[in-house]
Amino acid sequence: MLTIPIETKSKMPIYEQIYRYIRDDIISGSLPCGMKLPSGRGLASHLSVSRNTIDMAYGQLVAEGYIEPVPQKGYYVCKLDYLYARKENLYNGGSAEGEQTGYGREGAVESKIPYKVDFSLNGVDMDYFPYGTWRKLMRECLIDDNKDLFLSGDHQGDLELRQAVQSYLYQSRGVRCKPEQIIIGAGSDYMLLLLSRIFESKKHIAMENPTYKQAYTFFESLGYQISPVSVDEQGMRTELLEATGAELAYVTPAHHFPMGMVLSASRRQKLLAWAGGQEGRYIIEDDYDSEFRYAGKPIPALHSQDPFGKVIYIGTFSKAIAPGIRISYMVLPEKLLNRYHQVADFYFSTVSRIDQRLISRFLLQGDFERHLNRMRKIYKTKHDMLLQELRESRLPVEIAGSSAGLHFLLAVGGKTEDAAEQEKRMVEAAAKEGIHIYALSDFYIREELRQPAVLLGYARLKEAEIKEGVLALQKAWEGLFLDRM
Amino acid sequence: MLTIPIETKSKMPIYEQIYRYIRDDIISGSLPCGMKLPSGRGLASHLSVSRNTIDMAYGQLVAEGYIEPVPQKGYYVCKLDYLYARKENLYNGGSAEGEQTGYGREGAVESKIPYKVDFSLNGVDMDYFPYGTWRKLMRECLIDDNKDLFLSGDHQGDLELRQAVQSYLYQSRGVRCKPEQIIIGAGSDYMLLLLSRIFESKKHIAMENPTYKQAYTFFESLGYQISPVSVDEQGMRTELLEATGAELAYVTPAHHFPMGMVLSASRRQKLLAWAGGQEGRYIIEDDYDSEFRYAGKPIPALHSQDPFGKVIYIGTFSKAIAPGIRISYMVLPEKLLNRYHQVADFYFSTVSRIDQRLISRFLLQGDFERHLNRMRKIYKTKHDMLLQELRESRLPVEIAGSSAGLHFLLAVGGKTEDAAEQEKRMVEAAAKEGIHIYALSDFYIREELRQPAVLLGYARLKEAEIKEGVLALQKAWEGLFLDRM
Repeated sequence: MLTIPIETKSKMPIYEQIYRYIRDDIISGSLPCGMKLPSGRGLASHLSVSRNTIDMAYGQLVAEGYIEPVPQKGYYVCKLDYLYARKENLYNGGSAEGEQTGYGREGAVESKIPYKVDFSLNGVDMDYFPYGTWRKLMRECLIDDNKDLFLSGDHQGDLELRQAVQSYLYQSRGVRCKPEQIIIGAGSDYMLLLLSRIFESKKHIAMENPTYKQAYTFFESLGYQISPVSVDEQGMRTELLEATGAELAYVTPAHHFPMGMVLSASRRQKLLAWAGGQEGRYIIEDDYDSEFRYAGKPIPALHSQDPFGKVIYIGTFSKAIAPGIRISYMVLPEKLLNRYHQVADFYFSTVSRIDQRLISRFLLQGDFERHLNRMRKIYKTKHDMLLQELRESRLPVEIAGSSAGLHFLLAVGGKTEDAAEQEKRMVEAAAKEGIHIYALSDFYIREELRQPAVLLGYARLKEAEIKEGVLALQKAWEGLFLDRM
Repeated sequence: MLTIPIETKSKMPIYEQIYRYIRDDIISGSLPCGMKLPSGRGLASHLSVSRNTIDMAYGQLVAEGYIEPVPQKGYYVCKLDYLYARKENLYNGGSAEGEQTGYGREGAVESKIPYKVDFSLNGVDMDYFPYGTWRKLMRECLIDDNKDLFLSGDHQGDLELRQAVQSYLYQSRGVRCKPEQIIIGAGSDYMLLLLSRIFESKKHIAMENPTYKQAYTFFESLGYQISPVSVDEQGMRTELLEATGAELAYVTPAHHFPMGMVLSASRRQKLLAWAGGQEGRYIIEDDYDSEFRYAGKPIPALHSQDPFGKVIYIGTFSKAIAPGIRISYMVLPEKLLNRYHQVADFYFSTVSRIDQRLISRFLLQGDFERHLNRMRKIYKTKHDMLLQELRESRLPVEIAGSSAGLHFLLAVGGKTEDAAEQEKRMVEAAAKEGIHIYALSDFYIREELRQPAVLLGYARLKEAEIKEGVLALQKAWEGLFLDRM
């Protein structure tokens, strides 16, 4: 029999007191699975309450799945499979992303294999994150118990943030737009989802080959027809674009992902002319890591050179601040605003108001600029070091894509049909020495006659790891390139 | 001529010092729009730097849109239209949502018209938000400079949060599921977007008539065929479902939106049987405000009664915590998990890691339960008061939907073809007295022979406003219902 202390003076109804007592005992394990509960009549008499009260308590326990009635027998405690099934979970803290480690641009879950050095393309160096500033801004957002930040806001994103982004884009990327053209959203995937709503139907899209596989997967999953367009040292071979018949082009002009070259001035003109040449053609400019450029003049955004209003600009704070901050922005051409308002502006914003306020203050108070300048210096140090180590090594590689971003490309030997196979050997040999590098073939939509190449990211590595990594790579590849070393 | 102080010992290149000096002067207005800059040669000689240095500085200013070259003349300061165009903005702090005020379930921007009392259906009472707890949790999330919270996490949502949601749903809604079935996302709109990716093509969907217009707009914008299904006092008339030919049904079984009734037990069985009767049929259960129930037993989620694995459950923290917190959750049936992994699990999460951590702690530490209990009491007081005021008034209305949620429905007179027109008069008469109420016709997909009715939300009203509102409503409607008062 259960002796349940009942407070008759409590505001909580008696049936609920009984229900809670039993529920808590089941959760704590005091009433184990399969145990029979006392009969309703018996318990009612035991506790001196009405039978009806017990029935209500039991009824609620049944409704919530804690106990179940067995006909002719009574009530039994259920097996709480799901409540305590935590150990059986398929996903244990990030494994969903495990497969992709190193292959995205945003992910930053540590790889499972205990590599000594992982030249991951993911993530950012969090050792220099301005935690203090962040905490201070967070505190300021909450300090006034600012009610309005807990209410829902502008669907496109709060005006203050859109203005801050507008000003940032104008000053650092030459992008001229009005806040009405800016949409704030939770990550670039979400931006592409919105965009897919804005385009009236499935489209034919041209993508650089190789490209950012996350975007490729996105368009593929949507059933878009995808035409890969080769790249060379000037970037996308825009002369091939017309013949594909595509209506959209997805490009990374400032710093090609993953090859690293800048789209040349003449190719930019061709690309823009292609878009301007026909109604309905648009360019999606993914300006994913333009914040980090170490040499030469800043490369303006393609958007800033567009006389036709045909460039859709997408940027993110994932690289420049942190991947865990889910804030991206998209600048829509004026021509697409009507359509956006027709089909997609009714969506509530996907970014919390507090995060929006925090980021806009981070931008407006100059913290973002300070942070960027600091990180640029830090990454440049790593960049220079890796470059120097690679040059001083006897590795028979050509280094590309090294003026910007957070990774290099190491090309080896001449063009071959067999690039993917050779890359596989290079990656495997490195893995044997505990070094994680990434095959360029993973980013190809369609393989081509080309130089084999691997990718080395350095954002998250310490100086000692860079040295160790290059040394180990040298050792790993000795057998592979005996003739050339 | 510009006299720019140059620090030769600075690490900053001289061209950049010049560039920044001029840029800042342009931004501050010291160099106004249209002003001619000194010639490159002149300035170089003036500052005793090389001509090349000036060219680089000017080049960058041109690239970033601060100045422009005029052939044969020189460089001129550009008009900074966009940077300073803030006053021209179409959107001034929430007006994008202005049109929808009162008509959604999430929005909470104050209406523009200076109503004395707005019985808005939106928003929550933020006077009782646990700001202190929130600040404390936020501080705890940041206090360890917890690096991993700034890296990207599990695409479905962090396991800790999915487990917390699983446990909450199990205990409070009887929903049994595994964390693998739960997807965390930035709002219910995003959940529907994900869902639309999971369904292979455009679908035929049945919706309650009237219904939540945000969802209706969503499916309509996607090109879904939509079959409205009438409701009566038992909820959706499920006997009409089969004949529509729909494959999906979007329903609000625990508390119909906006009418407020509970879907009856027999209708639930019929609805589930319909879904179980054919491959490919699914029910989308939007359990939007089930947290607030004031009378009778808690209504279990339809999901908890589903033997076929055909219910997709969607819930949100917008009502139970705050609309500005962009976190919703969806429970996918096991049958749909494969498809989800095929087409949509590559999307990065749309909720920041910090928000995820914060909410999971809020749930796990019992703060959510405490908050809900407190709010339930507060809303019940408002609810009871509004109910009493309405009953004591001489208003000739039937009150419906009053056992749950955050709004009532007031029905007037008999069924008529003319309900929308009568509602319009009721709403306008109220508006003249400064009272904002909402016509039921706004929620109808297709009009029907029915009782005219208006909706009164009370979540954000103070007790005095409730009294004032009902009094004013009485006055407003006197002329309308002379015969019955």
